[in-house]
Amino acid sequence: MIGSDPTPHLRRAADVEYESVELADGLRKGVLLGDDQGTPNFDMRRFVLEPGARVPRHTNEVEHEQFVVEGDYVVGIGEETYTVSAGDSLLVPAGVEHWYRNDSDTRGSFLCVVPKTDDRIEIRE
Amino acid sequence: MIGSDPTPHLRRAADVEYESVELADGLRKGVLLGDDQGTPNFDMRRFVLEPGARVPRHTNEVEHEQFVVEGDYVVGIGEETYTVSAGDSLLVPAGVEHWYRNDSDTRGSFLCVVPKTDDRIEIRE
Repeated sequence: MIGSDPTPHLRRAADVEYESVELADGLRKGVLLGDDQGTPNFDMRRFVLEPGARVPRHTNEVEHEQFVVEGDYVVGIGEETYTVSAGDSLLVPAGVEHWYRNDSDTRGSFLCVVPKTDDRIEIRE
Repeated sequence: MIGSDPTPHLRRAADVEYESVELADGLRKGVLLGDDQGTPNFDMRRFVLEPGARVPRHTNEVEHEQFVVEGDYVVGIGEETYTVSAGDSLLVPAGVEHWYRNDSDTRGSFLCVVPKTDDRIEIRE
C-alpha cells in the first residue's frame, strides 16, 4: 500500500486542474484521484483530446484501464485501429504499443486508471 | 498479478451485460474490465442506479475509486451526504461506511474501480 490515507474524498469535476502533456499535441491530463487523495493501489486520471490531437505510438510499463467519457476519437492498440465513443472501455496491457488521434471537431476525453507502480513511457515513432 | 493476459480488449458500451444486485433496490452492475479480460491488478465495473434506487449503508474490505457517468444522485460516506453529478469522482477508503440513493426521475450511473483482492460486504443498517 502506497500513500494509504483513510480519508474519503469527493472531487468535483470543476475542481480538477488539467495540464498539457509534453509528448503529445492537443492532449491535457488531470488527476482525479491520486497521491493527493491518498489512493492506496491505483490512480484515476482523465485525459482530454482536443480536436486535432495527436498522441504518438508509445508503450508504458503499466497497464491502462480506460473508459471513454465523451467524443469520438481513434485509438490504435498494437496493429488494430478503433473509433471509440462514450461508454466504451479498453484494456491496454503493459508493454503494448498504443496511440490516439482526434480527427473530429469536438473534444474527446477518457479516464485512464493505472497501478501506483513506476512507469516509463517509450515513444515508438 | 492475478489473471494476467497480454491481450488488449475493447468493450463496446452495448456489449456489457448488467445484472441486478441482490442487496439493493434498483441497482444493476456490469463488469467492463475484469477477469474475463485478464485485468492484472484492478477491475472496472459500472453500476446503474434506477430512479428510486436505494443501496443500504455498508462497508467493503477494499477501496472504491468512482466516477459519476450520468445523473444526479445522493452518496453518503461516513457521516457526510453529497449530491453528485456527471464528472465528479470519489474515493471511498476500505472499511468506510457508504450508501447511495437516487431520488431523481432519471437514471444515474457510475464507474467503480476496485483492486482484485477478496472483498466482503457488510450491511450496517
